Amino acid sequence: MTTKINPQTLKGFRDFLPDQALQRNWLINKLKSVFENFGFDPLETPALEYASTLLGKYGEEADKLLYLFEDNGKRKVGLRYDQTVPLARVISSYQNLPKPFKRYQIQPVWRAENTQRGRFREFLQCDIDIVGEKNILADFEIVNIVLKTFKTLGFNKTKIIINDRVNFKGLENKLINSIDKLPKIGEEKVIEELTKKGLAKEEAAKILNKIKTAQKTDNIKKLFQLLKNQGYQENTDFIYQPTLARGLDYYTGLIFEVIDDDYQAGSLGGGGRYDNLIGLFTGQNIPAVGFAFGFDRIFEAANYLKLIPDIKTNTKILVTVFSPKLLQKSIEIASFLRDNNINTEIYLNDDTKLDKQLKYADKKGIQYVVIIGPDEAEKNTIKLKNMKTGEQKIINQKDLLNVKS
Amino acid sequence: MTTKINPQTLKGFRDFLPDQALQRNWLINKLKSVFENFGFDPLETPALEYASTLLGKYGEEADKLLYLFEDNGKRKVGLRYDQTVPLARVISSYQNLPKPFKRYQIQPVWRAENTQRGRFREFLQCDIDIVGEKNILADFEIVNIVLKTFKTLGFNKTKIIINDRVNFKGLENKLINSIDKLPKIGEEKVIEELTKKGLAKEEAAKILNKIKTAQKTDNIKKLFQLLKNQGYQENTDFIYQPTLARGLDYYTGLIFEVIDDDYQAGSLGGGGRYDNLIGLFTGQNIPAVGFAFGFDRIFEAANYLKLIPDIKTNTKILVTVFSPKLLQKSIEIASFLRDNNINTEIYLNDDTKLDKQLKYADKKGIQYVVIIGPDEAEKNTIKLKNMKTGEQKIINQKDLLNVKS
Repeated sequence: MTTKINPQTLKGFRDFLPDQALQRNWLINKLKSVFENFGFDPLETPALEYASTLLGKYGEEADKLLYLFEDNGKRKVGLRYDQTVPLARVISSYQNLPKPFKRYQIQPVWRAENTQRGRFREFLQCDIDIVGEKNILADFEIVNIVLKTFKTLGFNKTKIIINDRVNFKGLENKLINSIDKLPKIGEEKVIEELTKKGLAKEEAAKILNKIKTAQKTDNIKKLFQLLKNQGYQENTDFIYQPTLARGLDYYTGLIFEVIDDDYQAGSLGGGGRYDNLIGLFTGQNIPAVGFAFGFDRIFEAANYLKLIPDIKTNTKILVTVFSPKLLQKSIEIASFLRDNNINTEIYLNDDTKLDKQLKYADKKGIQYVVIIGPDEAEKNTIKLKNMKTGEQKIINQKDLLNVKS
Repeated sequence: MTTKINPQTLKGFRDFLPDQALQRNWLINKLKSVFENFGFDPLETPALEYASTLLGKYGEEADKLLYLFEDNGKRKVGLRYDQTVPLARVISSYQNLPKPFKRYQIQPVWRAENTQRGRFREFLQCDIDIVGEKNILADFEIVNIVLKTFKTLGFNKTKIIINDRVNFKGLENKLINSIDKLPKIGEEKVIEELTKKGLAKEEAAKILNKIKTAQKTDNIKKLFQLLKNQGYQENTDFIYQPTLARGLDYYTGLIFEVIDDDYQAGSLGGGGRYDNLIGLFTGQNIPAVGFAFGFDRIFEAANYLKLIPDIKTNTKILVTVFSPKLLQKSIEIASFLRDNNINTEIYLNDDTKLDKQLKYADKKGIQYVVIIGPDEAEKNTIKLKNMKTGEQKIINQKDLLNVKS
């Protein structure tokens, strides 16, 4: 053993140890079950794509945010940056897919951004999209599933903010981006930003006022009626906000953003209608609407609100090994439990003090420990210890199955 | 719409469309449930690691198989090549993990290899490992879970081939690699290879014969006794093969390989004990034993043996929309089904011929279609059509829930 390798992870990249992995999987499975409940099926795409595919949407200036490199075959390639570009590529590659194509996609993406609290270079993206339907029912379906998702997770104060990009018609993107900040920085600062971007002060105030007081568009009215029919409350569950812009300029119609009054650290996701993007790949306009759940944010918020069960392990029982002589008995009990679908560990050493075995169960967070000493073996009983309460009792082996419930 | 982006995927990389993704997820969930049944918990590690971490184990000559590049911060990084190195790094980074550390890990890995049938550049790795226990019980646990996994999946003729690397003590790796090929290429060719590698012919034959006739080691005897006690049959479920070597030279003790008599395209996985590898990271020897399931091979074999259900979609019912006037009724039925945990799509356009909606359900593989026309709406009934049988009947709305079973 000459050189010891330095066990560092890269900045912005994370290991998920069992407790975190289990909690994250819990959340992923909840999300999947709602998505499938609404008739969305999964899609997976490769981690690496041709650089030209990735740059097609974002343009050369996105270079710095992408992980781009040359592979061994001198191809210019890059890591998946989002799941919208791969979706567009898939729609283009498989023309025969049934439309509307409703898919969810939950895979990591990679961004060479500066890291900060809650912002990573590798993170899970969690998207739902409906491709090939321009009817407002598709927008409604997205808003409906988003609200249902948060309610299913146990969030009580999430609200979806809605606007129509039509409200910004004729305005430059850089101006729109300033107006978008209104709820965060206030009117004065927005006008200040707008003047810095070349508007006269009165002009800036006039434009801001026009946007602020814009009436609901027809599409918003239709959507809101559908949401009301569905039992959602305006201003509580959904709200119109004419200054909402959602940065990305590829949105073409309704846009959405989810916030939660109990969790102020930022939005929990966003989306909208983008009827032109997929055309970059297919050569023909294909309408689409979707939503990206901010997985890390939702995970953090759900943890903060204690909505995620405190899972340390999925193992229910540790069967200890009293002695080499009684090993076979312990193996049999472990097999019996496993065959009855109880997640069970057996201690993997037949020459270890019981005390050490109990400590192991405790450290791993395993709730029950089974002990089979000479007495128990003779009488076909077992000693069951609840590691949480400390309570222990002698029971018949078959009664062990009641632990399940 | 000026330039159309070319929608190519990279060679050796795959999209998984809904039907494939669902079938793969089915297999992943089956594997996970067995792993958790045996008390293994999940671990996840980053896609990117420092190149030095990856090269530490494989050595510079592995360069060509790794996806290595410089990131924007001039760090030399690489894509995950396997899950053993990340596991070793994790063990080293988190010294406080309870030992034995039993984890499963199911993530993609990337290898810049030549592609061929069944060999990809991005593929799912599926590993179980026990770290920190040298007792034979850990080896037994691995063999036991491997056999249980294949039985659970429905494989009837899988068998685990077992050997002890001790049988090769004193032999050079290049010679071992030739002997390993015995079942594939036969005795004559092995001896030919050995002579090409510098042995005299008689010497080659003598060495091969010595290995072929090597008696079971103590560890193999102990393991086989445990397997017999567990109800497994020697030669049917497990078999001793003294020439088995499992390429990788980091194995230090028992080694395993799974084959299936009904599927001859290659082994379904392999593993063994590697007591020195983790020390490269921790600086101290930590024993370990594990197994890597060949996910793509198992998926292919399971499909070939018809063990994987033919899932085209997870959606059970499509609720059609008869007319704009009856839209609200359809939305209500869809919500009712969803609230009762039946995966349901609603057709997302209220101005589409019924015929087209039925074709959509058929193309997606949705089994049931609900139709609510004026008659049905008035009488609070629905028309339920089974797309597989063509059968249709008028039922009360609440009876729709029976579709579930």
